[in-house]
Amino acid sequence: MQLVIGNKNYSSWSMRPWVLMRAAGIAFDERKLRFGNGFETDGEFKRQVATLSPAGRVPVLVTDTGLAIWDTLAIAETLAEMHPQLALWPVDAAARARARSICAEMHSGFTTLRNHCPMNIEAALPEVGARLLATEPGVVADLQRIGSMWEQQLEQHGGPWLFGARFCIADAMYAPVCSRLKTYALPLPPAAAAYAGRVLAHPAVAEWIAGALAEHDFVAVDEPYRSAPLPA
Amino acid sequence: MQLVIGNKNYSSWSMRPWVLMRAAGIAFDERKLRFGNGFETDGEFKRQVATLSPAGRVPVLVTDTGLAIWDTLAIAETLAEMHPQLALWPVDAAARARARSICAEMHSGFTTLRNHCPMNIEAALPEVGARLLATEPGVVADLQRIGSMWEQQLEQHGGPWLFGARFCIADAMYAPVCSRLKTYALPLPPAAAAYAGRVLAHPAVAEWIAGALAEHDFVAVDEPYRSAPLPA
Repeated sequence: MQLVIGNKNYSSWSMRPWVLMRAAGIAFDERKLRFGNGFETDGEFKRQVATLSPAGRVPVLVTDTGLAIWDTLAIAETLAEMHPQLALWPVDAAARARARSICAEMHSGFTTLRNHCPMNIEAALPEVGARLLATEPGVVADLQRIGSMWEQQLEQHGGPWLFGARFCIADAMYAPVCSRLKTYALPLPPAAAAYAGRVLAHPAVAEWIAGALAEHDFVAVDEPYRSAPLPA
Repeated sequence: MQLVIGNKNYSSWSMRPWVLMRAAGIAFDERKLRFGNGFETDGEFKRQVATLSPAGRVPVLVTDTGLAIWDTLAIAETLAEMHPQLALWPVDAAARARARSICAEMHSGFTTLRNHCPMNIEAALPEVGARLLATEPGVVADLQRIGSMWEQQLEQHGGPWLFGARFCIADAMYAPVCSRLKTYALPLPPAAAAYAGRVLAHPAVAEWIAGALAEHDFVAVDEPYRSAPLPA
């Protein structure tokens, strides 16, 4: 199988299935398509991804039979079905329904946080985070919901992950949020903040982050807050 | 089971699981929470939905054991798992992966179409549609993608539905789009337009539409284009 992704520094949707597969030990080849400015509408990225998926976005999972599966949630559901022994979703039916609920909530929601705090793994933007906390009540509301959700999950299942002992699809879905919390220095209650720290230290997540830091790329359209990359 | 929904005239996310369950013959009680102005942040709707789901949005499926499942995609996946004999997803694995791809694409995407053309079943706004086609290339691009997706599915599986003989989750996911096409008089290629007509005529969809037309409600925050409802 091949997983087609965008820049590791920026592509939060690519990060999710990559981390999920790596954490679960599912073998895949990685193919990275570099974002360029205007990548949503034209350019080399758009041309390349169009040959892989009619939806025109990453991530795309291309199976060994050539089937293209796009969009993070569809990839996650399909992988869970292909590998039932890996328990990518919680085994308990009620927990699984809850995991799907919070994953779908992430998939369609938290738009204020996502718009104001795009993933940017190599950046440190605490001054942007402080300003947003003071001026954007939608960012504060998104953070409150995420914090209370994580706390409830950790309390109910005992941690260390959202559904207990096993790192599952829900943890992978929220991994980019953990990176945003760090980049923008956004506060969460202690148990939730500790969970975010564990996610960033998970070997699969740490491997993705190392890849992002090695890119030394700078795509202006993904950089609302910086005018230049970090020195290499 | 109880399905908690918003206004039938406006709530495209509520429409999807309602139509899916009705079309599949899954029994449920309907509970409608009326949207009010400012329903996203305060008001009676927000207070009521908060007692049902921490995500604070409709739809919510409440099972007979009291478990709350929120967000359309999570509800659909859970129903598919609870009722395997109903084949809510296509039975063929490759078709199922494709169905999940286009459902997730709808769930996270087509934001330009959704923002500019909010569902409003009782309204007829062809002049708005004509203006958008002339001024909003993002709306045109979303329509082109939907049209080509539907045509490809209908050609591959022979219709009448996106994955062949059975109305499935993918058809329910795109049902609100069919309503928008009518409200805003948006054009699609013939085969895709004919599919949209079939969806609107499906008994489950027609029942939802009849319910929407019977509401005679007018929620200003959901009405960017009208200043008053139709006369009753």
